[in-house]
Amino acid sequence: MDSAAPAPAPYREGLPPQPPGPPEGEQHVTVSETARDLVIGMADGLTLPFALAAGLSGAVTANPPIVTAGLTVIAAGGVALGLGGYLAARTDAQHYAAERRREEQETHDYPEREKWEVSAILHRYGLRGETLQRATEAVASDRRRWVDFMMRFELELAEPVPGRAASSAVTTAGAYVAGGLIPIAPYMLLNETMPALAWSAALTGIALFGFGWLKARVTGLPALRGAVQRLAVGGVAAALAFVVAGLVGG
Amino acid sequence: MDSAAPAPAPYREGLPPQPPGPPEGEQHVTVSETARDLVIGMADGLTLPFALAAGLSGAVTANPPIVTAGLTVIAAGGVALGLGGYLAARTDAQHYAAERRREEQETHDYPEREKWEVSAILHRYGLRGETLQRATEAVASDRRRWVDFMMRFELELAEPVPGRAASSAVTTAGAYVAGGLIPIAPYMLLNETMPALAWSAALTGIALFGFGWLKARVTGLPALRGAVQRLAVGGVAAALAFVVAGLVGG
Repeated sequence: MDSAAPAPAPYREGLPPQPPGPPEGEQHVTVSETARDLVIGMADGLTLPFALAAGLSGAVTANPPIVTAGLTVIAAGGVALGLGGYLAARTDAQHYAAERRREEQETHDYPEREKWEVSAILHRYGLRGETLQRATEAVASDRRRWVDFMMRFELELAEPVPGRAASSAVTTAGAYVAGGLIPIAPYMLLNETMPALAWSAALTGIALFGFGWLKARVTGLPALRGAVQRLAVGGVAAALAFVVAGLVGG
Repeated sequence: MDSAAPAPAPYREGLPPQPPGPPEGEQHVTVSETARDLVIGMADGLTLPFALAAGLSGAVTANPPIVTAGLTVIAAGGVALGLGGYLAARTDAQHYAAERRREEQETHDYPEREKWEVSAILHRYGLRGETLQRATEAVASDRRRWVDFMMRFELELAEPVPGRAASSAVTTAGAYVAGGLIPIAPYMLLNETMPALAWSAALTGIALFGFGWLKARVTGLPALRGAVQRLAVGGVAAALAFVVAGLVGG
């Protein structure tokens, strides 16, 4: 791959065997994309319909209009998050493809400049002199790798996973609808507004708390703080909604 | 920095002068974080309150309850996006700091393993043999750079910008409220529901179209397609909201 003279083991041709690392339990935390979609959809689904229903409870005396507004916002929000997210992911994929074509063209039109850009990135991490020169030539010796390198380290764009856009849209929208039904359900099942608000607040509070707890645990951060923060967002949103609805509707 | 023998120019010690690149107009497109926040806030603000108002227009015959629900969802959504986004950004910053501490500890506890991980990444981009060995030693010769390298290229975590969380929250929430007032304003100014719905749809449609156009132009993608897509999300969300509200409320 490069023009280096025969080198001593253990870096001869491929990689040396992997030395022992930290035990399994101490590894870094990486959250899957699907878990992230679920978190986003569920958090929005719990917060917004709950705040809307709680706000309207201060301005309206019957449950049917609250249920109508709540289910309407669940439907609209599900579409906005799902379809909007799908199109945004597709746009990101097109943006990646367009930038990749441009970057590849630049390696044809301005090879010296593009090599220099590889050098500038490696230089930032301490490569100097002959090592920098040889490393740059190694990266640039294969055009696919060269462009891969520029996409990741210059433009900081990750290659989109095919099919992610659609599955992400379904996950997010589904989580939004499922989350949204929790605060609205009491208004559908009970006749009076204030008991429905109490049940809605209790159920949503438990869900937000548990959900914030879980998310913090998964990302390795203090769980109680995560739970309280998530609860605070829902509470502040609902309180402001209550005040606004009372001012406008009262 | 590394143990390489004196190397030929132009890679002697620092970087060589930058060779000429493509003219200014052909550069890659990078969208600022603030523009991204504005886009997210404005898109959500236009879509959800519009869909809610349009949906309720099919189930309610007077404008005041629509205005109440609309302003309530604007207030709650602004808090959810702003405060929620602020806390999420702060959580990301804490996650980055925690992972960075762990990564730094690993360079003390398992230096050979961490060097091997540097090698594995550079190997993916074509470095081999002595060049791979020297490049790995160069990265690992300075602990700060070494950890920087692992954070960026192994964990793919970017260092959070201090103060971004707060400014991002204010931008997103402000854009959401500004966008949300566009579809609700006609219901506040007019007495009858159907003319208000017509004005709301027209104003929101123009805003979504112009906004999708602008966003596509900024990211270098086909502008008409971007505009039509953005319009479609708003239209589908409103249509579904109309159907749901009609079924529940009628």
